[in-house]
Amino acid sequence: MEIVYIAIGCGLLALLYGLVTARQVLAASPGNATMQAIAGAIQEGAKAYLVRQYSTIALVGIVVAVLVGLFLGLTSAVGFLIGAILSGAAGFIGMTISVRANVRTAEAARGSLQSGLTVAFRAGAITGMLVAGLALLAISGFFWYLTGPAGHAPDDRLVIDSLVALAFGASLISIFARLGGGIFTKAADVGADLVGKVEAGIPEDDPRNPAVIADNVGDNVGDCAGMAADLFETYVVTVGATMVLTALLVTGVDNAFLLKLMGLPLIVGGLCIITSIIGTFMVRLGRSQSIMGALYKGFWTTAILSIPAIYLVTNWVLGDMNVVFGADLDGVGGYSGMALFWSMMVGLGVTALIVWITEYYTGTNYRPVRSIAKASETGHGTNVIQGLAVSLEATALPTLVIVVGIILAYQCAGLIGIAFAATAMLALAGMVVALDAYGPVTDNAGGIAEMSHLDETVRLKTDALDAVGNTTKAVTKGYAIGSAGLAALVLFGAYTEDLKFYNSALGLTAPVDFSLSNPYVIVGLLLGALLPYLFGAMGMTAVGRAAGHVVKDVRHQFATDHGILRGESRPNYARTVDLVTRAAIREMIVPSLLPVLAPIIVYFAIAAVAGIDNGFAALGALLLGVIVSGLFVALSMTSGGGAWDNAKKYIEDGHHGGKGSFAHLAAVTGDTVGDPYKDTAGPAVNPMIKITNIVALLLLAALAHGG
Amino acid sequence: MEIVYIAIGCGLLALLYGLVTARQVLAASPGNATMQAIAGAIQEGAKAYLVRQYSTIALVGIVVAVLVGLFLGLTSAVGFLIGAILSGAAGFIGMTISVRANVRTAEAARGSLQSGLTVAFRAGAITGMLVAGLALLAISGFFWYLTGPAGHAPDDRLVIDSLVALAFGASLISIFARLGGGIFTKAADVGADLVGKVEAGIPEDDPRNPAVIADNVGDNVGDCAGMAADLFETYVVTVGATMVLTALLVTGVDNAFLLKLMGLPLIVGGLCIITSIIGTFMVRLGRSQSIMGALYKGFWTTAILSIPAIYLVTNWVLGDMNVVFGADLDGVGGYSGMALFWSMMVGLGVTALIVWITEYYTGTNYRPVRSIAKASETGHGTNVIQGLAVSLEATALPTLVIVVGIILAYQCAGLIGIAFAATAMLALAGMVVALDAYGPVTDNAGGIAEMSHLDETVRLKTDALDAVGNTTKAVTKGYAIGSAGLAALVLFGAYTEDLKFYNSALGLTAPVDFSLSNPYVIVGLLLGALLPYLFGAMGMTAVGRAAGHVVKDVRHQFATDHGILRGESRPNYARTVDLVTRAAIREMIVPSLLPVLAPIIVYFAIAAVAGIDNGFAALGALLLGVIVSGLFVALSMTSGGGAWDNAKKYIEDGHHGGKGSFAHLAAVTGDTVGDPYKDTAGPAVNPMIKITNIVALLLLAALAHGG
Repeated sequence: MEIVYIAIGCGLLALLYGLVTARQVLAASPGNATMQAIAGAIQEGAKAYLVRQYSTIALVGIVVAVLVGLFLGLTSAVGFLIGAILSGAAGFIGMTISVRANVRTAEAARGSLQSGLTVAFRAGAITGMLVAGLALLAISGFFWYLTGPAGHAPDDRLVIDSLVALAFGASLISIFARLGGGIFTKAADVGADLVGKVEAGIPEDDPRNPAVIADNVGDNVGDCAGMAADLFETYVVTVGATMVLTALLVTGVDNAFLLKLMGLPLIVGGLCIITSIIGTFMVRLGRSQSIMGALYKGFWTTAILSIPAIYLVTNWVLGDMNVVFGADLDGVGGYSGMALFWSMMVGLGVTALIVWITEYYTGTNYRPVRSIAKASETGHGTNVIQGLAVSLEATALPTLVIVVGIILAYQCAGLIGIAFAATAMLALAGMVVALDAYGPVTDNAGGIAEMSHLDETVRLKTDALDAVGNTTKAVTKGYAIGSAGLAALVLFGAYTEDLKFYNSALGLTAPVDFSLSNPYVIVGLLLGALLPYLFGAMGMTAVGRAAGHVVKDVRHQFATDHGILRGESRPNYARTVDLVTRAAIREMIVPSLLPVLAPIIVYFAIAAVAGIDNGFAALGALLLGVIVSGLFVALSMTSGGGAWDNAKKYIEDGHHGGKGSFAHLAAVTGDTVGDPYKDTAGPAVNPMIKITNIVALLLLAALAHGG
Repeated sequence: MEIVYIAIGCGLLALLYGLVTARQVLAASPGNATMQAIAGAIQEGAKAYLVRQYSTIALVGIVVAVLVGLFLGLTSAVGFLIGAILSGAAGFIGMTISVRANVRTAEAARGSLQSGLTVAFRAGAITGMLVAGLALLAISGFFWYLTGPAGHAPDDRLVIDSLVALAFGASLISIFARLGGGIFTKAADVGADLVGKVEAGIPEDDPRNPAVIADNVGDNVGDCAGMAADLFETYVVTVGATMVLTALLVTGVDNAFLLKLMGLPLIVGGLCIITSIIGTFMVRLGRSQSIMGALYKGFWTTAILSIPAIYLVTNWVLGDMNVVFGADLDGVGGYSGMALFWSMMVGLGVTALIVWITEYYTGTNYRPVRSIAKASETGHGTNVIQGLAVSLEATALPTLVIVVGIILAYQCAGLIGIAFAATAMLALAGMVVALDAYGPVTDNAGGIAEMSHLDETVRLKTDALDAVGNTTKAVTKGYAIGSAGLAALVLFGAYTEDLKFYNSALGLTAPVDFSLSNPYVIVGLLLGALLPYLFGAMGMTAVGRAAGHVVKDVRHQFATDHGILRGESRPNYARTVDLVTRAAIREMIVPSLLPVLAPIIVYFAIAAVAGIDNGFAALGALLLGVIVSGLFVALSMTSGGGAWDNAKKYIEDGHHGGKGSFAHLAAVTGDTVGDPYKDTAGPAVNPMIKITNIVALLLLAALAHGG
């Protein structure tokens, strides 16, 4: 049990780090009165949005919690609520810090680039540590309660079901937050650009544009709150699934040993919070003044320190790294500490390679982004064609890395090896989220600098910080979807193990035939592969529709008050924020329910036509179909979107004619296209994949208990 | 044997129809001297391109033929060559008719819309019947030789291997032709637009643009020759795979009965050539003057007549529709004539629904195209976003139709039911290709009318014909990829049956584990799913690169001879054609080899790491991964591209501001983006899927013979 206590301690340490750093950030000067007024409007808008979003989600959540309680019992319902509430909390706290750090970053950037970086990165680090800390606390606290005070054996079905329900709570909230926030941010962004830049001919972040506050609010609710909920979910699901799979697969050991083994992912997560905190202190501009370099110093410190940390803690937990334990269920001849250690190293390797590949595809120093910039010279069409080509191509190397990762981890320790590889990936979440969450802060800081007419040099510094943010945001999304690929395989493994366990309870007389030559498996694969496409279509359409409302509202404001464009009267910012809020919340509901309902519908439809065994086969194949297709859809959308964005930045830096040139106009089009790709549809595929898998697991449990 | 003779007779009838109709088309007036000069330039360019393309392919083909001969014997090599040569011939003849019918259509359109439609559709029908006829002749003639004069039993491995080699020949040529033609046509189109419309401000099809002839050549080598080779391949592979699977799966019957059963797909194809020919006579404008209506009259006549034809011929071949034959290998309790008949009806149903759905997504009368047109009002970015959303969404209904088709056909007659469903789909190929091949003729006719300064009313008529062509082209691609989805399942079935057959020859000690819980199956699925993405990326990049060469050449011509833009000197059309030719041929090689080499590399790599059983498991999963992901990539690209194109046409018809408006500019961008989507990358996925599958089958045979 001391393993779990240490994990809980590390989770609390992360919260403490967040608290202390938050005080530091808030102690910085919030700038002059104009800046504070603008920041106030953003704070107000962001808060109003999140309150309304979480109220809507709460309604869905309560209904689902009741259903979970009815089908799986009270403990699972409590697990679901813990996951749901802490997921919401992670998003809310991250956003609260972000909307206060933005104006302080702008103010600090009036001093030096380093000061701006410090404030912005600290804000990001707070969100990062809170996400990892809360996720670790949720799962280790709940596990401690179940196996301690509640007195259940670690492989008791109640423990397994409850952990899955906890993950379900996190995922369900996360998909709403990711999608709602994603629609908000891009509807505001695209709408503001269309009506401001294109129609009225006023620059980005111009205070005369009524949508400008909504745009800045969007950075916070989408890139910060939405992303925090997403990574919280990824963390809980991955670590939870690893524990569940350990309980299902490792047999022939006593409960005390199993408890240790199930605690290993928790304590690895805990130690990596410490290495992440150490990493945050390394983020400093060197002599080269490279911002990306400064951030990488933090990341690599964390990654490298984590190697010995993981070795030592695995050794400490298991006693002897070479003793083989567990029956040979998986065809790997049992497991050993060394095998698990190497699996986790595979996870770290996959993380490092995906970071590197994503930077290659989205950074301004490499061929892909430059090819898009070059193609912009011949117009909008060729910019988009090249961007789409890059987005398709960007799936290749990450897929190969994931494939090699799967093979290596499997060779080390079978399916559990894949699970521990995914856990090691997620253990770095604190640091990765820190890199990401710094992005919206600097984006906002630039907007505030512009709107409060700060000196041009301040905007230059915030722009430099922001450009790096584009890459780190793409990196985080690549990392999240890559880990989702592994985590989903773990969940699929849990599904097949559960099927074996529940075989007779479900009324099955033989093992389910998951062979590819079973046509219902192919049907499931096709239907699963369809989900990310349909989901993506819905997300993209939603952004278009919501952006259309923004355009109409702003046109109306311009038409009814001619003083706005002359800079004489203040636009009604709040009305636009409110409008985008309502549109985003309305649009998020249906697509979010798609992955929840699809597994249930497919199971019952196929079971009705071809019997329950084929129903379970199709459902299992659906889970893999979602992964196989979702991985590519998400990777191509997030990398492509990042590349388009930075191709624009590259041209704005003076290449191919610079700002205002024909190439720049084309690049702006590409950036607009990439926006819903990379910030709405693409990243929401990640929780979508997992929610489909978790719903399938819960469906099995519900059918088994009912049958 | 008389079944095969009848099939051969029907194939010859198709050739006769082609011959007679070609004489009719060529008898029509080729217009005035200017028109003939322009048409002459197009003919010359198209011929020059095809000669060079097929010479290059021939080099690859000879190497591959030698390899096939070495590993699989002389008969297979001959089969490969027959497939390859006839595939090339189908493309070449179709193109030859097309480049002669274009000018005659323009001339006929000076009379009436009906005359223009008659000439253009007849040209299309010639290509259609030649494709179906040559394909049927190739496979039935070769089958007749193997089981007749050569004296092999119908289920002899030599017969099976040779049929697969025949399909391989057709596929290999087809992927080169599809991709090379696709790159040519879109590089010329995009290049001509960029440098003409965008830079020089001269209209489309303006004779001052040196790329204008290349653009018109492209319609013929891409949309006509490339498409003909593609459908030839689809036909041969589908019918061939159905025969192979019948030989592998239907056991416990005598050779005479098996010969009949293997002849059934051939005679069904033959009868449907007759119903297709009847259908072509129904293509006439009614009182409503609806061109789409006229074409549909032909299609529906063919489809409806095929129902009793298929019933009668099945009944005649099998004697009794209700007698059950074949052992219960497939879990369906043997097969019967009725079961096969219903399976084929499923295929016709899938065809009809896919035609209808594709028209919904690409026709100007429905929501999707109109939503893109509407989104164009707010600019380039929103046009592309909405187009991408439509392209993602357009995958949903066809996938559901295919899934329901798989389930129904499987419930009728197991895997063989799916094979016969695919065969019935392809039996309509003559009619479907006729609808499609009419498109490039009218497209060219419009260009010739423009360039030879015919009356504005002529251009209006050819434009009306051409707009319908956009939809029929999209329909054909949807049909081809839908049938490829089914055909690939059949090929995968053949792969698994072959594995069982060769089990000990390959050195396997147990059945290969294709279960989804085998991680090497997941690895194979992921790698297979990657192929269409990588292939698509290569295709899109190739178009961009080749279009860049066009832009540079045209700029150079404008700069060195100022008389060109003033209309005083004639541009050097041939140089641009030659340049695009070389670029397209250079660019087609590497992507075309991807699906040939990938299965071989994946098998040997995984076999080296994890043993040959897992190598075969990963290879099998790769085949399904290609289908699962390729279906979506191809459907989204072809439907999305068609929708973008018609959204532009819809605006040009006077909606949202009409020609020259801001919305129109945005729609032109969308059309440019859709071009390589729908005409290069998307359709080439279809032969790519099948070639991957066929290479795997040949690899098995080669390994078994070598082992």
